[in-house]
Amino acid sequence: AQAQSSVTIYGIADMAVQAGNRGAGSGTKYALDSGEQGGSRLGFKGTEDLGSGLKAIFALEAGIYMDSGASQGGLTFGRQSWVGLQGDFGTVKMGRQYTPQFYFFDAVDPFDLGFTSGVAGGSTSTGGVFGFLSASSWRVNNSVSYQSNDMSGFSTMALYGFGEVAGNTSANRSVGINGQYAAGPLYVGAVYYKQNDAASNGLKSVLLGATYDFGVAKGAFGYSKDTTDNNTLDQKGYMLGVTVPVTAADNILATAARLQNNLASGANNSTQLAVGFTHSLSKRTNLYGSYSRVRNDANINGGGLAVANGATASLANVGIHHAF
Amino acid sequence: AQAQSSVTIYGIADMAVQAGNRGAGSGTKYALDSGEQGGSRLGFKGTEDLGSGLKAIFALEAGIYMDSGASQGGLTFGRQSWVGLQGDFGTVKMGRQYTPQFYFFDAVDPFDLGFTSGVAGGSTSTGGVFGFLSASSWRVNNSVSYQSNDMSGFSTMALYGFGEVAGNTSANRSVGINGQYAAGPLYVGAVYYKQNDAASNGLKSVLLGATYDFGVAKGAFGYSKDTTDNNTLDQKGYMLGVTVPVTAADNILATAARLQNNLASGANNSTQLAVGFTHSLSKRTNLYGSYSRVRNDANINGGGLAVANGATASLANVGIHHAF
Amino acid sequence: AQAQSSVTIYGIADMAVQAGNRGAGSGTKYALDSGEQGGSRLGFKGTEDLGSGLKAIFALEAGIYMDSGASQGGLTFGRQSWVGLQGDFGTVKMGRQYTPQFYFFDAVDPFDLGFTSGVAGGSTSTGGVFGFLSASSWRVNNSVSYQSNDMSGFSTMALYGFGEVAGNTSANRSVGINGQYAAGPLYVGAVYYKQNDAASNGLKSVLLGATYDFGVAKGAFGYSKDTTDNNTLDQKGYMLGVTVPVTAADNILATAARLQNNLASGANNSTQLAVGFTHSLSKRTNLYGSYSRVRNDANINGGGLAVANGATASLANVGIHHAF
Repeated sequence: AQAQSSVTIYGIADMAVQAGNRGAGSGTKYALDSGEQGGSRLGFKGTEDLGSGLKAIFALEAGIYMDSGASQGGLTFGRQSWVGLQGDFGTVKMGRQYTPQFYFFDAVDPFDLGFTSGVAGGSTSTGGVFGFLSASSWRVNNSVSYQSNDMSGFSTMALYGFGEVAGNTSANRSVGINGQYAAGPLYVGAVYYKQNDAASNGLKSVLLGATYDFGVAKGAFGYSKDTTDNNTLDQKGYMLGVTVPVTAADNILATAARLQNNLASGANNSTQLAVGFTHSLSKRTNLYGSYSRVRNDANINGGGLAVANGATASLANVGIHHAF
Repeated sequence: AQAQSSVTIYGIADMAVQAGNRGAGSGTKYALDSGEQGGSRLGFKGTEDLGSGLKAIFALEAGIYMDSGASQGGLTFGRQSWVGLQGDFGTVKMGRQYTPQFYFFDAVDPFDLGFTSGVAGGSTSTGGVFGFLSASSWRVNNSVSYQSNDMSGFSTMALYGFGEVAGNTSANRSVGINGQYAAGPLYVGAVYYKQNDAASNGLKSVLLGATYDFGVAKGAFGYSKDTTDNNTLDQKGYMLGVTVPVTAADNILATAARLQNNLASGANNSTQLAVGFTHSLSKRTNLYGSYSRVRNDANINGGGLAVANGATASLANVGIHHAF
Repeated sequence: AQAQSSVTIYGIADMAVQAGNRGAGSGTKYALDSGEQGGSRLGFKGTEDLGSGLKAIFALEAGIYMDSGASQGGLTFGRQSWVGLQGDFGTVKMGRQYTPQFYFFDAVDPFDLGFTSGVAGGSTSTGGVFGFLSASSWRVNNSVSYQSNDMSGFSTMALYGFGEVAGNTSANRSVGINGQYAAGPLYVGAVYYKQNDAASNGLKSVLLGATYDFGVAKGAFGYSKDTTDNNTLDQKGYMLGVTVPVTAADNILATAARLQNNLASGANNSTQLAVGFTHSLSKRTNLYGSYSRVRNDANINGGGLAVANGATASLANVGIHHAF
């Protein structure tokens, strides 16, 4: 009797057994963790047709550390919470939402923002290869975004995040834009993002990347550069990756990435190697495994995964990913 | 296969761009905020027919600051969480629920408890005209309420909120009652509410109001008086308001309200003026705008909206309200 | 249009008016509390058929203190959050989940883990007779469990909870196993559980119990023993209980339980007596009442329900329990 047609419930339940070692004698931690392939979540979304091609849309998405039942980041709907309008002009959204770089990461990273770069027992804090390479944020509060519709393969997204400081429109402000071109086997993308702190010092991120699907394998390349206005951070990184569909149900994933700390004059590289596989049990459910290793030079701690500069960290996962 | 008929999912996604100034040189804050027209929320409710006209009813309603994904007031289901029975005798509810004055505010305030009296970037803390005029609470924990059915236009609600202090039934206790008469274009309502603090000092609130729908416009009048047993607060206020249906899809709203601090002997008035509009895109979705201004005399800070006594505050909103 | 067949929403809304006294002149506390018969909750669960008898299953269950709208234990999905696989081999689950002893408590306790042993106004912290008798946990984070299918009436569950301490697999670790046999009117169960603290000192719990349904009444017997490796706790307890189906809609429940603190040489017993009734309004909704009393000797505070050793505590509830 009750009509529920305006709300769709969806989500992901993802758990893995882990063995992680952050190096420098820290010892191996065995753990059960949530969200290694993709963050565990429960979402509510809807679309209302307003006529003339116009639609009202919303999403409320709870991130869940399923190993403890806690909310991701302490926020009940911390993954996404926005409302917007969609039409011939594109999509406008307001709220807490993904940044332009998230969509880029999602498209270029063979590990799809998961698997490789977390700390054992650290819940959904994995971040794929770009969690290692990039200091920029995936989500931003108090923001308005515009996403274009597809224009012959090209699309773009621009975002403005209010700093919400009285008498100051610069402090805590975020601005960003991406552009991507997708046609057949090819994807090329680029991002610029600047995120100010309370003193209006900006963290500027530039990202470039491409993927090409050769059929027997899909190759990926990514470049990341982060600098701050007050020179507290200056790093750049590269990633090469491949996705190999071994069978209709099995994929092998691999990446090699290097991050360089330009504030140090030498011994300033961190290297991440990662391999993984997924085995589908259905369209919605798969098993997975992954192994990643980060080796820091003396003057860098790539992604903060090792306990300190100069240390070597590793992480192995075996888990299940179930979408609903 | 799975029957979900016993639960209805509903909610509101409401976001606005704001410019707010709390006066006295505090500077303008530009912000994106949640719940300006009506608090953003996700609710679950249900009704079970028990036979003989008796029904079991419940509601679990999460308030969401959609600008950040946080929960309203830090409570996962902080808007409403109650269970009850409904029948020929009326409705009894137990849990966290709306106070008798909430229903009065909702009926009398042209802004319907939204739009006008928040602080920019302050999330769902707007409170319409009565958020400015009244110090009494909208919701109360640990409470039992009784709501009568309609009796030839008259209805009433009584509420008792347990203080839950061992050996003391007075501390932290809340008691309240409302009465209203609605017939055709006329609504008249009154409320008495007393909310004790931990030392059993009561905040007593008296509210009176009426609305009359003339067709071309609906007029509203409200009166509010708050006093505490220990004389820490003594204020009264008046509100005049109007709702004008300009077209089938457009409404203009306006109110003028004055609050007086009786603990000061002069320069003790705060005046709020507010105008707003709503433009419906559908039955469930509308755009809105509003502007409100509070001018404090030297010995009052009406609703705490300005930074201090004697300052002048303003708030402008442009937003979207989507019910699902 | 939107398919929601993969998610089932379910829950319980349970509220009661209470009068509780923790003894020793603490005074009676009158309260409205949540979850006296069964913890108030909102859950989302699903099953996906993967073929060949294999299924993917998950549950996300929010515990709600409906008297305030807060989350149980401060965790959004703090009751259950797990994903697993189910098949001919049994069921494997990973996440935050019930311990082996929970299923034992649930089967043996006439009060079904509710009604009797909470503190007034303390929300869903009631725990039935075993909340009084046993110090072991109902739920555990970071855990993998295996539950067998039924084998001619016999079934078993084993659980391993990761301690997640680097270089140390013993600290904070939990391990447990249960076994039960159910045939016609008979149930017999046993549990062993060991839960280590950060210093690897284990709390060991042994539980034994049985129920037999004589038709006119169902009798229950339970035994509990808790000891710690470092001798900070050494207690054992017994429970006798009965459930009497007075009419098709009415049950009377009663238990007598005694807990003994073996670390004290005398005056070391705590006795709990509890009676209750349930009256069904439908299959999903019932009214209930209960009264329980705990009398401590001078050297024990059973279940921590009284204010101190030697005091006598009581709790009375009248409430409604609605499942959806």
